[in-house]
Amino acid sequence: MNPIYRDMPTTIFEAMSMRARAAGAINLGQGFPDGPRNDAVIDAACDALQQRSNQYPPMVGIPELRGAVPDWYRRHQQLELGPDEVVVTSGATEAIAAALLAVISPGDEVLLFQPLYDAYLPLVQRAGGVARLVTLDPSGWRIDAEALAASITPRTRALVFNDPMNPMGTCAHPDDLALLARICAEHDLIAICDEVWEALVYDGAQHRSLMQYPGMRERTVKIGSAGKIFGLTGWKVGWMCAAPPLARILAKAHQFLTFTTPPNLQWAVAQGLASQDDWIAMARDQHQASRDFFCDGLHGLGLVTVPSAATYFVSVDLAASGVAMDDVAFCDAIIDQAGVAAIPISAFYAEAAPGHLVRFCFAKERATLQAALDRLAAAL
Amino acid sequence: MNPIYRDMPTTIFEAMSMRARAAGAINLGQGFPDGPRNDAVIDAACDALQQRSNQYPPMVGIPELRGAVPDWYRRHQQLELGPDEVVVTSGATEAIAAALLAVISPGDEVLLFQPLYDAYLPLVQRAGGVARLVTLDPSGWRIDAEALAASITPRTRALVFNDPMNPMGTCAHPDDLALLARICAEHDLIAICDEVWEALVYDGAQHRSLMQYPGMRERTVKIGSAGKIFGLTGWKVGWMCAAPPLARILAKAHQFLTFTTPPNLQWAVAQGLASQDDWIAMARDQHQASRDFFCDGLHGLGLVTVPSAATYFVSVDLAASGVAMDDVAFCDAIIDQAGVAAIPISAFYAEAAPGHLVRFCFAKERATLQAALDRLAAAL
Ligand SMILES: CSCCC(=O)C(=O)O
Ligand SMILES: CSCCC(=O)C(=O)O
Repeated sequence: MNPIYRDMPTTIFEAMSMRARAAGAINLGQGFPDGPRNDAVIDAACDALQQRSNQYPPMVGIPELRGAVPDWYRRHQQLELGPDEVVVTSGATEAIAAALLAVISPGDEVLLFQPLYDAYLPLVQRAGGVARLVTLDPSGWRIDAEALAASITPRTRALVFNDPMNPMGTCAHPDDLALLARICAEHDLIAICDEVWEALVYDGAQHRSLMQYPGMRERTVKIGSAGKIFGLTGWKVGWMCAAPPLARILAKAHQFLTFTTPPNLQWAVAQGLASQDDWIAMARDQHQASRDFFCDGLHGLGLVTVPSAATYFVSVDLAASGVAMDDVAFCDAIIDQAGVAAIPISAFYAEAAPGHLVRFCFAKERATLQAALDRLAAAL
Repeated sequence: MNPIYRDMPTTIFEAMSMRARAAGAINLGQGFPDGPRNDAVIDAACDALQQRSNQYPPMVGIPELRGAVPDWYRRHQQLELGPDEVVVTSGATEAIAAALLAVISPGDEVLLFQPLYDAYLPLVQRAGGVARLVTLDPSGWRIDAEALAASITPRTRALVFNDPMNPMGTCAHPDDLALLARICAEHDLIAICDEVWEALVYDGAQHRSLMQYPGMRERTVKIGSAGKIFGLTGWKVGWMCAAPPLARILAKAHQFLTFTTPPNLQWAVAQGLASQDDWIAMARDQHQASRDFFCDGLHGLGLVTVPSAATYFVSVDLAASGVAMDDVAFCDAIIDQAGVAAIPISAFYAEAAPGHLVRFCFAKERATLQAALDRLAAAL
């Protein structure tokens, strides 16, 4: 058996969700929302199941979705893409896997930034790549230009960059994006940009992709997720966007990972992207209000939070809160004693993890968040 | 870019389907049925979309489907499996990819049998494996024991075996399965068994998995496909079955390919496996009747067919039919001149391809098959 998988634990999200189910805990660990619900998109999937083909759609995605994605990016991000620059995948995880398998050859080095989503490192390794870790400065989650430069070698071929960033809920600073663009051009790197949180950016901020920085248009794989845009995380409809020569190669990797994605879900997402701008804005505002509500509650308990500008997540700074436990011990304590599941941020580090940060998912109804706060209050 | 994907053509199925669409041809190339339709399963998917969770299901699959798959195998194949031996995947292609990524380490050798499904070879190579090709004897598609033995080295770790076999529509001979079982035990190999056609075995024959042969229970990954069982090829719901220690490692590879599969489709497939035995038998009989109808028509045109015992496919033997064209030329001719798309069997060979066989998909309505026969009659 391949040692990468043989020696790998179950993902922290799955492990925590299983513990939460077993303990009857409120699950603020794994990132999924309990609302709002988009009935138009769900109904469209039903209609397509009943009235449209359930056979293999085109391998790269149905034309309606390959058209709707560029239209949506044009309206929302002033980004111009063509339908031939979109490859639909069975979720963003498949997109990340396909991009890494397509871009990397054995021995190639890939820059990863810590904290990092748990799929990146094993996928880089399984693709034959060698990961070079650049650790973001926890004071503001900025890229240290010198650390970045020191991580580049003649074998560096690509980087994976998550913006907005899970777990911290930060948006990359424009200066850092400009720095990455310069580095990519200088060293001829491909940027694999995991931007699944792009529709969940709060406080009036505007997402701007690394793809839109100078020199990046032809060397970026921009990954998006309908599951995140519509709060339907189980649907597993995602996409890779890239210039046609790159997209053609990405499609080959996708072809032999899942070949294609259920056509009814593709159709529904196409309808949703074309018609649900108001709902998407409403959902974003609702998540922002949930963030504010939950943060206020945490502050009321004397817990200090790290500013969250995007995603479903906010982290508590245990050290600043005067909690004398590390993140893993704290998560163990609150799941067992308070019945609330969270994620230790150290799970997002391959090395040199900080021990003072714990991530909570706030994309839940008020009553659920209030119940979690009450339980935490009773236990703390 | 990785050279495996950079230098790879689009899959023959996709290429032929695109040509068929462009030419307005009847598409008997890519394998998908135009009926019968299972309304119960489609309705169940709709109900689940409306009434059940659309968020991440458990990574290995929903409990209902992990229970329904073993129940179905118990009833249909007298095979005993537990729910913890099932990992749900986003189609059988993902299952094959996950199994190869999990089982193979760079430098491992993998036995593949020609003719071979187009995903196997690139996936073995991208996993770092070295493919050893064993070519089946085209007179009866049997395994040559000496050729098999000669292909094994101390580095051989696994084999991929497709039974029933696409493209030829044959079921493996029990003696060949016994031979494979002996070889696997002797050389400590993992067998990755692509059995997606198991529900489409005709003429009263009974599918028996290599997993059921002596010594194979603990060393087999048995791959199945709901898309094939229910004639819903776009759904992309499949599974890997394996003994728990193996299944746990397979799940790790799945975790970072798609993570999970849409819960509404999983739910519908679970309902279908539990309640649609009569429909599954009816669909099988209907495909068998379509095979007979189409073969009779081909014979009426003076074309000789190779016996098909399973799958959606039957092949014409051009040499035996007295057609002085190779398979690629014949497929070009009939798509352009007759408006009928088929697949040259040479596309299923990595080396030493025969040139005299052309595959047709017969899983179509009578009227479609008759129209294709009429068009072929006019052009020949
Ligand atoms: C695929 S499970 C993880 C979901 C998620 O994005 C998170 O919780 O960080
Ligand atoms: C995934 S497209 C190929 C479908 C199929 O099994 C075939 O046509 O052989």
